[in-house]
Amino acid sequence: MGTKCGGRSRPECRKSAMDIEQLARDVCDGNRRALARAITLVESSRDDHRRDAIALMDALSHTGKQALRLGLSGTPGVGKSTLIESFGMMLIREGLRVAVLAVDPSSARTGGSILGDKTRMELLSREANAFIRPSPSRTELGGVARRTREAVALCEAAGYDIILIETVGVGQSETVVAQMSDIFLLLLAPAGGDELQGVKRGIMEMADLIVVNKADGDLEPAAKRTCADYSGALRLLRKRPQDPDGFPKAMTCSALQESGITQIWEDIKFLTAWRREQGHFDARRAEQAEYWFGQEIRQGLLAQLDREPLRSHVLSLTKQVATGTLTPSGAAEQVLAALRHDTP
Amino acid sequence: MGTKCGGRSRPECRKSAMDIEQLARDVCDGNRRALARAITLVESSRDDHRRDAIALMDALSHTGKQALRLGLSGTPGVGKSTLIESFGMMLIREGLRVAVLAVDPSSARTGGSILGDKTRMELLSREANAFIRPSPSRTELGGVARRTREAVALCEAAGYDIILIETVGVGQSETVVAQMSDIFLLLLAPAGGDELQGVKRGIMEMADLIVVNKADGDLEPAAKRTCADYSGALRLLRKRPQDPDGFPKAMTCSALQESGITQIWEDIKFLTAWRREQGHFDARRAEQAEYWFGQEIRQGLLAQLDREPLRSHVLSLTKQVATGTLTPSGAAEQVLAALRHDTP
Repeated sequence: MGTKCGGRSRPECRKSAMDIEQLARDVCDGNRRALARAITLVESSRDDHRRDAIALMDALSHTGKQALRLGLSGTPGVGKSTLIESFGMMLIREGLRVAVLAVDPSSARTGGSILGDKTRMELLSREANAFIRPSPSRTELGGVARRTREAVALCEAAGYDIILIETVGVGQSETVVAQMSDIFLLLLAPAGGDELQGVKRGIMEMADLIVVNKADGDLEPAAKRTCADYSGALRLLRKRPQDPDGFPKAMTCSALQESGITQIWEDIKFLTAWRREQGHFDARRAEQAEYWFGQEIRQGLLAQLDREPLRSHVLSLTKQVATGTLTPSGAAEQVLAALRHDTP
Repeated sequence: MGTKCGGRSRPECRKSAMDIEQLARDVCDGNRRALARAITLVESSRDDHRRDAIALMDALSHTGKQALRLGLSGTPGVGKSTLIESFGMMLIREGLRVAVLAVDPSSARTGGSILGDKTRMELLSREANAFIRPSPSRTELGGVARRTREAVALCEAAGYDIILIETVGVGQSETVVAQMSDIFLLLLAPAGGDELQGVKRGIMEMADLIVVNKADGDLEPAAKRTCADYSGALRLLRKRPQDPDGFPKAMTCSALQESGITQIWEDIKFLTAWRREQGHFDARRAEQAEYWFGQEIRQGLLAQLDREPLRSHVLSLTKQVATGTLTPSGAAEQVLAALRHDTP
């Protein structure tokens, strides 16, 4: 067995120096440092780290522990962190262990990260039974997806009961989060009636609960109206087999005044229990695993093109294709042949 | 040299029995039977035919001939065939040679084909200088795209001056056609003002000309109103560098009464001349070639998964992933390793 890594969260150990079995045991024991180190390992794109990460995930895939995975999407300013703080603290008070992860589509471009500033969830971040992890930055959404998905599995193995996966509602990150969540919440702000069109139909179809936040003070009537609008819109959607009567549903809350938070939790528990009973819970997890398997293969195949010497070969062929010296099909055949090792 | 294939349009010759150089010469000489046979060859997915097709495309990629490629999209009933008939006959009268091809997204599912019934273009189909080819059926859109793209290049090598590429305006087929056209026309029917939302913004952004058909009889006022609506909508789009002032533009026509057809042609000629002068014409072709190169690589990579024994391997892994026996990443790694021949 290799020597254990230090407590630093960067996996700077020499190749194969990491004791994956020990790390798996520590994560399983609920050791927060080990969990943080494990997440850092799955976030690394170094080849040897990747191998270790796959071994770690494999070692932890049979713990039998299962958390409830809650996806949460909403545009900036809608009150996601305030809701996570209120909702998370309520869960902690119920004796549950809560992990908060994030998929940040913007970090790929800007290098910034949501959840980076833990003071956004001041109370929750101080709780021993809460684990908050910012989104990894500087990676493309595909990479973020894999890492978050593996971080979810790590938190699950570490014994967290509820895993909240937050994302900013832009681009394709909702799909990413929905595909790794058991229940998907869409958080909205009160708005005028014509705002309804702002939420894409595809996003609405993914939501299990639509929660209109800021139902307090002056905004309460607008929040109720927005909620009614979405209730109406949800009724127009095709009934999904995984929903009991009344779901997906729209509701209001005030994360700031902590009103409506308990109702959200009651609805989540009801929906989860129903889906478990009907077999939809496990079926959805199985579908999601298949989806990610397909995504991993696709990404792995395309990643081959980014590796030298193929990368330079593709670039040189691209120039010849652009000038018409080679046809697109002929050039592609050369690339595929190189991948098959048909060429010297 | 091998023996020449017979005149049958199915490539039923034995492997390597086809004389590709001779076929290339015949296509280049404008032999219609050879052209039809060549298109049938590029439509085949048999491995040996595919190799022959790549050799043929390569042999014909340096003829220096260049047709004007016109993409045409519109929903069913909008009058595409009537327009192609009127527009095509006008071009024939100008002494031009016209080829008509189709990308039919529905054929992948239904096995049906548009343009299958040549009587839809009764006059044009009887012209010696017109070549009409129905969409290949029973293939996925990716396959249809490659085949149509190669058919376009074959028609070009055969000396056609104008190649019309028709598609039904549903799904992603517009993008496919726009990516193989020099000029992209969107054909619309007169409609109420709120119909504007029926055309997706992305489709509108691809269009160089929006043509509102059926500007005749009772429908003329509605056609003019629809045209004005789209003119307004086009002005709101960001100015593209490849457009002179006034483009993209909306206009009306009546394919039935053959009014407005000449104006469409004048606008196409003006736009083409301007783009050629400014270098945008060649730049767009180069970009399109690069795009198709990327698509061909992607499709080729994914096609590996459909071949045995990998296909069965993937299916068996999928089951293990669904039941949780394997993680998605671990299973994907096995597939990628098998592709790298790392496994026995």
